[in-house]
Amino acid sequence: MNPNQTVEDESQPSITAMTRRIQRLSIHLTPLPLFQPSPQLNMLTCAKANKLEFDKGSLSSYMRGKYRESQEKVLEFFKSRPYLQTPIEISMNEHRELCMRQLMALVREAKIKPFRYIVEDPAKYFAIAEAVGNIDISLGIKLGVHCSLWGGSVLNLGTKKHRDKYFDGIDNLDYLGCFAMTELHHGELCFHCGLQTIATFDRITDEFIIDTPNDGAIKWWIGNAAVHGKFATVFAKLILTTHDSKGDSDMGVHGFIVPIRDLKTHQTLPGIEIHDCGHKIGLNGVDNGALRFCSVRIPRDNLLNRFGDVSRDGKYTSSLPTINKRFAAMLGELVGGRVGLASSSVGFLKIAVTIAVRYSLLRQQFGPPKQPEVSILDYQSHQHKLMPMLASTYAFHFATRDLVDKYSEIKKTHNEQLVGDVHALSAGLKSYVTSYTAKSLSTCREACGGHGYAAVNRLGSLRNDHDIFQTFEGDNTVLLQQVAGDLLKQYKDKFQGGPLSVTWNYLRESMNTYLSQPNPVTARWESADHLRDPKFQLDAFRYRTSRLLQSAVARLRKHSKTHGSFGAWNSCPDASSRAALKLVCDLYALDRIWNDIGTYRNVDYVAPNKAKAIHKLTEYLSFQVRNIAGELVDAFDLPPYVTRAPLAMKSEAYAQYTQLVGF
Amino acid sequence: MNPNQTVEDESQPSITAMTRRIQRLSIHLTPLPLFQPSPQLNMLTCAKANKLEFDKGSLSSYMRGKYRESQEKVLEFFKSRPYLQTPIEISMNEHRELCMRQLMALVREAKIKPFRYIVEDPAKYFAIAEAVGNIDISLGIKLGVHCSLWGGSVLNLGTKKHRDKYFDGIDNLDYLGCFAMTELHHGELCFHCGLQTIATFDRITDEFIIDTPNDGAIKWWIGNAAVHGKFATVFAKLILTTHDSKGDSDMGVHGFIVPIRDLKTHQTLPGIEIHDCGHKIGLNGVDNGALRFCSVRIPRDNLLNRFGDVSRDGKYTSSLPTINKRFAAMLGELVGGRVGLASSSVGFLKIAVTIAVRYSLLRQQFGPPKQPEVSILDYQSHQHKLMPMLASTYAFHFATRDLVDKYSEIKKTHNEQLVGDVHALSAGLKSYVTSYTAKSLSTCREACGGHGYAAVNRLGSLRNDHDIFQTFEGDNTVLLQQVAGDLLKQYKDKFQGGPLSVTWNYLRESMNTYLSQPNPVTARWESADHLRDPKFQLDAFRYRTSRLLQSAVARLRKHSKTHGSFGAWNSCPDASSRAALKLVCDLYALDRIWNDIGTYRNVDYVAPNKAKAIHKLTEYLSFQVRNIAGELVDAFDLPPYVTRAPLAMKSEAYAQYTQLVGF
Repeated sequence: MNPNQTVEDESQPSITAMTRRIQRLSIHLTPLPLFQPSPQLNMLTCAKANKLEFDKGSLSSYMRGKYRESQEKVLEFFKSRPYLQTPIEISMNEHRELCMRQLMALVREAKIKPFRYIVEDPAKYFAIAEAVGNIDISLGIKLGVHCSLWGGSVLNLGTKKHRDKYFDGIDNLDYLGCFAMTELHHGELCFHCGLQTIATFDRITDEFIIDTPNDGAIKWWIGNAAVHGKFATVFAKLILTTHDSKGDSDMGVHGFIVPIRDLKTHQTLPGIEIHDCGHKIGLNGVDNGALRFCSVRIPRDNLLNRFGDVSRDGKYTSSLPTINKRFAAMLGELVGGRVGLASSSVGFLKIAVTIAVRYSLLRQQFGPPKQPEVSILDYQSHQHKLMPMLASTYAFHFATRDLVDKYSEIKKTHNEQLVGDVHALSAGLKSYVTSYTAKSLSTCREACGGHGYAAVNRLGSLRNDHDIFQTFEGDNTVLLQQVAGDLLKQYKDKFQGGPLSVTWNYLRESMNTYLSQPNPVTARWESADHLRDPKFQLDAFRYRTSRLLQSAVARLRKHSKTHGSFGAWNSCPDASSRAALKLVCDLYALDRIWNDIGTYRNVDYVAPNKAKAIHKLTEYLSFQVRNIAGELVDAFDLPPYVTRAPLAMKSEAYAQYTQLVGF
Repeated sequence: MNPNQTVEDESQPSITAMTRRIQRLSIHLTPLPLFQPSPQLNMLTCAKANKLEFDKGSLSSYMRGKYRESQEKVLEFFKSRPYLQTPIEISMNEHRELCMRQLMALVREAKIKPFRYIVEDPAKYFAIAEAVGNIDISLGIKLGVHCSLWGGSVLNLGTKKHRDKYFDGIDNLDYLGCFAMTELHHGELCFHCGLQTIATFDRITDEFIIDTPNDGAIKWWIGNAAVHGKFATVFAKLILTTHDSKGDSDMGVHGFIVPIRDLKTHQTLPGIEIHDCGHKIGLNGVDNGALRFCSVRIPRDNLLNRFGDVSRDGKYTSSLPTINKRFAAMLGELVGGRVGLASSSVGFLKIAVTIAVRYSLLRQQFGPPKQPEVSILDYQSHQHKLMPMLASTYAFHFATRDLVDKYSEIKKTHNEQLVGDVHALSAGLKSYVTSYTAKSLSTCREACGGHGYAAVNRLGSLRNDHDIFQTFEGDNTVLLQQVAGDLLKQYKDKFQGGPLSVTWNYLRESMNTYLSQPNPVTARWESADHLRDPKFQLDAFRYRTSRLLQSAVARLRKHSKTHGSFGAWNSCPDASSRAALKLVCDLYALDRIWNDIGTYRNVDYVAPNKAKAIHKLTEYLSFQVRNIAGELVDAFDLPPYVTRAPLAMKSEAYAQYTQLVGF
């Protein structure tokens, strides 16, 4: 028997009819302009209570800073060119080609040339790079590999002759390049230890000979190598033949410019083997490859010789005495990559938080009939997921901006002390921020329920693309260990006196707090005024830091206090925005303290009731932030173009769907 | 000037040459049989210390249980048919078609018909479903939607007439079906509240008329609906017209069998509108669609009438008195979906842990020259990431096996008390396990560094596919709230006396521990013997549970103690395996306690030094588990076929790559 047979033969409505109905529904749902809070939401009693009023425009200006126009130029360019937008479904090969076309169009059509800002205005470079990453993270990475890693290595590790010869070609993309540091057996956990590739100087021909001595030394995961790159900065041990009893001397790792493909024919050059690293979890628009060198000869001039040089007769000269010092100087110059990753990572966190907060504000949870509809952000569990994350996004925005400013400063002043700070800060912040963003991308997907799983909402591709941020430019776990190790070593070196860096001032401050032991009286203070006092918050962080360092160092001296980027809320020119920033600052600080409450309780830094008061206040602040959550994400100022997959902007059906479910 | 010009024109080695070299390298790296621990690794001093010896085969048999053969049949079938394996790169439409072909081949070619075990042997069904999910999670979900959701609803909510009419068609895939519960405005956060679809009985034609009253009631995310489904179980409010002053009566939500496509022509039937939900983050082999009903007429017999029926003259009969009781009975029958998700989720956790542990054991971190190479699993930070996860995998394996046994029991005995338990346990365990697996998939990717990012290693696709396990069949956050709410409600209902369920026995036990207050003497015991005593571990968990319930309930009575699945280590017939299981059990328990140490410390359940002792012992146990980590993952008994992307098995280049980097 055919179970269908009893169904009556009615006229069958077409998909078009359904589309029409969806359109109709989009009228039922009050059409909500994306950049204004819904008037509907203001009606909710709980949403009105204690709402902080502030000027969103002022806050937005304060947040975006002076590069707003540069960023908008990038976004507008791609928005107006649908054929340059990355579709949701695209094969690896097509994605790589599209990504290359996007990069070409950016530089040659839009005339946006970020490379020139690498040294002269790094803050502008990072701002442009963040906007480019918003188009497609693959494009951001391809640009970063070319401008910051390949181009940056030429400018920062090379000298005038390299700048003169390569600047234009890098700037206009004729000389698309790679950064060949990571090797198969050395890299993903510790990106600079034990590189094995060698560069031997041949005095007769005045050339270096680049060799991959074994398969573990194959350069692996090299961006732009599989398909598009013409050049690579290859990191190799510089070997000088002394032609006497001493034999060969290893002068340590240096960077060398190695052409890998012919500029005209694009054929792989002799002695170079290129292998395609294939499909990745994300970033498939970037063509990662493996490079192997078989007696590849390059002119002596191709040594990036800022920190060490070889003369025509094979003599080595350097202003720095040891291999380790030279390597450290080199790495110091390459720190821009980490600064860029931290900065971009916050950019993706902003996108995800914007998607999740807007969805949660607009999405109504229909209860039983006759009960009022409530936004899902009115559920405490939802506030608990998203509000501390929103506060953290603000905190990281200012922290990375501060880092970018410091980095720009060292490019101008070459202040050696600041170089050390930026190195430690960039390692720490890169690993902290990228780990946090990776977790948050998952949380945002969950917070958007089933609709977060629709590819159109970008949360999946953001997570897949961003995932590796935790690993490249140094594995996060290893980086944090290095930061700790560096600090302890620096401490040992510097304890005898002399100027201490900013980082050290911070740590001394921590130690000072620690040495004064938990105060049994203040440990019992529970008032909101006290808990929201920046002095209490900073003291708590410092106390925790000092606990962690306790077993490692013996004593530190007192020093004057600085709030650093933690006090960004106090610098905003607009008073109402200051109040909003202070609110997110408090939520961030108290949520962090609550997350580590075990540490604080364990030594009675806070009494049991104070711990409860912190928890209660954190919940209250979450609720207050929830009331201005829409405005706070609006202040990130992200156009719909970057908070939805590009396909959504092209496809009418997708646009209707997103409106239908509240995205 | 052409910067290439100085490069000498040497003969250019081909990619083949490189491939050959990679082959050569695979000899340098001792070829390691995947199912045996590397002899090399046994040589490491730190790996030899305190190594527990146990019989891996016994443990494996104890773990896999009696359905090993059924699972291997599935894996062997797909392994021998490369054309049925899902490639790394595949478009959504191709993936949907491949997934359908895989399902057809499984049932019609391999003659593996899981549907028939849904009621008669659920444990066997879940075992087969887990193996099917190992081939491609999309396939596992497509199978689950068809057999467990659509088929299960027919068997569990219908009566003999439905079984007689549909069993064969469901079993042989002629009647591919959908499960249409979720609606656009009701579902992703709370999957059963406020469904709006209606089914009105027409006494004249003896039919139900199914209608979607508004666009918010469109059935959304319905698996198998976009392309392949012929039928759907549609959940709708049953409306009876009384033809008197009372007007219409809403009898509550019932399930109805609704044909959606013609069995012969596959044309969408009249009154049905189908919309494609499009690309998702993962699971793109499953064709999710939206369904809208416009006066769709189905015969009265299509009401799944186990819990409520309508007579020819429109009279409603039910053994259950209220709408809520009927809905609860219906949901109780649908709990198999959650049991299956929890069980499958542990299956994916096993795959990820196996990949990450084997990689970490084989991958050497080359230090400076002349220092011995160490496995990256010898780093404490790496042990800290992976060993508690390995212990948790064992814990969840036994916990879900226990749940499956209980579920099988209720299918046989219909023990009402056990139904309530399985409902609460499945909600709690599904949300706990899927959240843990989701986080762990990310951690495993990070633990494998850059090579974890290569698509060939499955960690990315596992994460993308598994992600939605946290949301479907009930959002995890909401599920946990429901569990808590249900428990409190049950407490209120049952406090007066009468038999308490297993869950309640557990909670009473907790309360008992709580009522006795932290013991200031035992709070100071720090010996490993005490900390590894299951009594201490269970008391600690119960104490924590009771703290959380403290404010909700006033008192509970004492009851006899049961270890449940927590004592699985003690049931293993092999003594050496028992020791291994006790070791992972201790690590799991102490790691959990350490994770919540703030709670324990806050009330002095453990003294400060005891907290330190717990931490120290956890680290020591991690190290001990590390020593047998290879054997412990081997006991999961997963063939290489499921721990690598299928493409890896087809492509020589990929196989070489995986060997090269240690996968």
